[in-house]
Amino acid sequence: MSAEVFHCLRIEQYDRKFLDDICELADAIRFLSKSKQGADQLASLLSHKRAMLYFVQPSTRTFLSFQSACQILGMKTADVRDTNTSSEVKGESEADTVRTFSSYYDVIIMRHHQADFARHIANVLNNSNRPVPVINGGSGKDQHPTQALLDVYTLIRSFKERGGVDGKKIAFVGDLFRGRTVRSLACLLTKFQGVRQYFVAPRELQIGDDILSYLDQHGVSYALTEDFRSILSEVDVIYMTRLQDEWDVKDGGNTKSINLQDYSLTKENMNFLQPHTIVMHPLPRRQEISTDLDNDPRAMYWRQMRNGMFIRAALLAMIFDVTDNIFRIKETLGENVSVE
Amino acid sequence: MSAEVFHCLRIEQYDRKFLDDICELADAIRFLSKSKQGADQLASLLSHKRAMLYFVQPSTRTFLSFQSACQILGMKTADVRDTNTSSEVKGESEADTVRTFSSYYDVIIMRHHQADFARHIANVLNNSNRPVPVINGGSGKDQHPTQALLDVYTLIRSFKERGGVDGKKIAFVGDLFRGRTVRSLACLLTKFQGVRQYFVAPRELQIGDDILSYLDQHGVSYALTEDFRSILSEVDVIYMTRLQDEWDVKDGGNTKSINLQDYSLTKENMNFLQPHTIVMHPLPRRQEISTDLDNDPRAMYWRQMRNGMFIRAALLAMIFDVTDNIFRIKETLGENVSVE
Amino acid sequence: MSAEVFHCLRIEQYDRKFLDDICELADAIRFLSKSKQGADQLASLLSHKRAMLYFVQPSTRTFLSFQSACQILGMKTADVRDTNTSSEVKGESEADTVRTFSSYYDVIIMRHHQADFARHIANVLNNSNRPVPVINGGSGKDQHPTQALLDVYTLIRSFKERGGVDGKKIAFVGDLFRGRTVRSLACLLTKFQGVRQYFVAPRELQIGDDILSYLDQHGVSYALTEDFRSILSEVDVIYMTRLQDEWDVKDGGNTKSINLQDYSLTKENMNFLQPHTIVMHPLPRRQEISTDLDNDPRAMYWRQMRNGMFIRAALLAMIFDVTDNIFRIKETLGENVSVE
Repeated sequence: MSAEVFHCLRIEQYDRKFLDDICELADAIRFLSKSKQGADQLASLLSHKRAMLYFVQPSTRTFLSFQSACQILGMKTADVRDTNTSSEVKGESEADTVRTFSSYYDVIIMRHHQADFARHIANVLNNSNRPVPVINGGSGKDQHPTQALLDVYTLIRSFKERGGVDGKKIAFVGDLFRGRTVRSLACLLTKFQGVRQYFVAPRELQIGDDILSYLDQHGVSYALTEDFRSILSEVDVIYMTRLQDEWDVKDGGNTKSINLQDYSLTKENMNFLQPHTIVMHPLPRRQEISTDLDNDPRAMYWRQMRNGMFIRAALLAMIFDVTDNIFRIKETLGENVSVE
Repeated sequence: MSAEVFHCLRIEQYDRKFLDDICELADAIRFLSKSKQGADQLASLLSHKRAMLYFVQPSTRTFLSFQSACQILGMKTADVRDTNTSSEVKGESEADTVRTFSSYYDVIIMRHHQADFARHIANVLNNSNRPVPVINGGSGKDQHPTQALLDVYTLIRSFKERGGVDGKKIAFVGDLFRGRTVRSLACLLTKFQGVRQYFVAPRELQIGDDILSYLDQHGVSYALTEDFRSILSEVDVIYMTRLQDEWDVKDGGNTKSINLQDYSLTKENMNFLQPHTIVMHPLPRRQEISTDLDNDPRAMYWRQMRNGMFIRAALLAMIFDVTDNIFRIKETLGENVSVE
Repeated sequence: MSAEVFHCLRIEQYDRKFLDDICELADAIRFLSKSKQGADQLASLLSHKRAMLYFVQPSTRTFLSFQSACQILGMKTADVRDTNTSSEVKGESEADTVRTFSSYYDVIIMRHHQADFARHIANVLNNSNRPVPVINGGSGKDQHPTQALLDVYTLIRSFKERGGVDGKKIAFVGDLFRGRTVRSLACLLTKFQGVRQYFVAPRELQIGDDILSYLDQHGVSYALTEDFRSILSEVDVIYMTRLQDEWDVKDGGNTKSINLQDYSLTKENMNFLQPHTIVMHPLPRRQEISTDLDNDPRAMYWRQMRNGMFIRAALLAMIFDVTDNIFRIKETLGENVSVE
């Protein structure tokens, strides 16, 4: 991580050790954030760094999560979210636009509709005088690596007292064909031992064969089903997703007519879940999880979002190599710190 | 203020003591802001807090005022101003959107076109695992409590050397029917003794009966008139407002044709004012105050705006319970501080 | 600089000493920025100041450059970029809008389509109770003084080891008629001794007579030509520009049909340049410089952009009179600082 630039582009780059390390780091950041002293020390770590958030695909949630993560570590942020106000109206190529940012900023966090744009930019920068790290904050239908990280972090936290993630059963429910969240997490879970995956969706929205091949290659056990009811009492985790019909236009598809009613969690079918089973959702949701369930202790989706902020702060801390500093601060402040 | 969350939703919640206290606090913040030492100490107080400014109803002035207030106290800010870039395009409910913010931020400041949206959200958050304070930065035609606070602050500052606000005469002029600023201030002035209120407007734009009933209940003396000229030499305060014709569309009204020329301040009719009478305006203005008057010492509207920044900082300081710290800093720096 | 407000409005206000001083200051800021210690000390200098970036003419690059410059010195920033979200929809005059900012901020940096708007606002503020400095970040076709400063800074840095800028030959190429960058720089170069200027453009886009008169008055030697090839091996600096066809609409012109192919730098004609000749471009570019050349050591345009950030920080430091502090920090940290 010293001389070479540490990009975060695709989930394939993470091994199990990395996942365990980054989650431990996120826990330390979360702990320190709770006190003024801890938060102020965290914010002194990267006070000399500036981040560009280049989010040209609409996203409030991920944008704010990254921006908050930067602020937690004291980084200054800037953003470009609407290409209309940008130099692109003057005929500039997007690669030039982004290369400009490398002149001003120390890291570029980007969300883009093109599947491989972040990787392309990372290559351009690697060959320039001033390579800066690139973080993929979601690229097309393809990858959303930090979402996968926060999902893993949520799983690790949730099962800390129950033997960890290894051997657990997880059901993915809804629009699995286009949800890059599910695609990324399904792959990342191959780093754990004996996790069994269930893909629960109407046929038109079932998970892609590329993912299933990947699971086959890694010897992972899985099942496909259209019967949501059947898995409810079976699994440790239910990972809900919404219909991603904004892709219909681009793909020429028409999925608005698909009814995901049968793939929804209600107060009623929550009764079939085991008491320890957790419910996750990448949000935003539509009707697939009733708001009645929001205060159920098994509903993990709001905490999952907060986890995202901390895991992204941890990622930035790793990129800028201040991991040791964080654990040192935690040790120094120890339990003396007055948590608010 | 300890365990319970301190929302700022409606002006009814403030009593006279609160008003006096917050104005004294705003004075202290203003004083400290004038020196680098003082400003840096202020900015250390809430350096561990992050604020979300959710302003989906257009507003530059109030937005920037709150943002500056946050910056004065060292808070990091984020904002959502255009719902098009938000997750709402993906079919999320607005309550979910705002609840998301409670995962990332320590306070939510919101301006919204719906009359009771801020209160609704405060309730949702009160019932969640992570209640955070909500500040109403203007809701529909209904309330704009921090505008009322800054108006009171301006009055208190202006009459500090003239016996205070009690017993003063204030005229509200212009579009009183729809100006929530006037509606809020009129109610808040009932906390003072013997303030007489004049409502000066064409009949179609006269103040609502609900406000008059409220004044009646509180035994407040008032008068309604269409004769602007008659009150000019009478009052201590002239509170001007503009025609709020942006509401025409929603209400199906048509007030663009109403001529407020007779309810305008010009260099000429300023001569009728007493030398101590002050002119206020919530801004933005149109033609109702001639720019000729901007450098008249009685013109208070630019200072009124600056007052808004300080009173909002004071409100945030109260919400996060750092009031005592501020007075302590002021005492320590005392008059030794070199004011720029 | 003490009592009087220091605006930055037009390049005519700068003399040679100012140029040398600001470039030396920019070098100091650049040096300090390289270490955490230095960067943190820089960021403590103006931590008590807030800047408004009022950019109602589209510009990503200049906006981000100024914002970064503010962040380097620890200033908090706010921005207004889209007049639709502003109070102007409520019928406010733009002078009122900008005067509002003077209530909240300590400096106003503005980019505007009107040629003399920044100067107009500076006058309004000079006559108000709270004059704050105004920086012109580009006004119409007229002036872009900080672009000229960063260009001069790039020249001074590039020729530090080659006898300085005096006596050098510089060719301006492309749309010279409308590029305010070239117009500003051409004038500013009169402050140096014996600089010879070449204006290389098709007749329709040749530099304006007003600039040539200015050069004549200052006894500066120049030449006009349409023959790009002829000057390639002649000059020390080639300053490329793009076709500014966004002005066509406003001016009723039609320049889209003009082919600037003959005024483009390619891998091929780069061979005619001397080894020490540098290539500049204000960016954004179109096809007038091939991306093949981006890693050529003579390509200065990416560094030029980074120079802009540092020269703007230097300008802010001069406006707020912290120049001496910066040199003192540099002396104290000296070479002990560990540059990353």
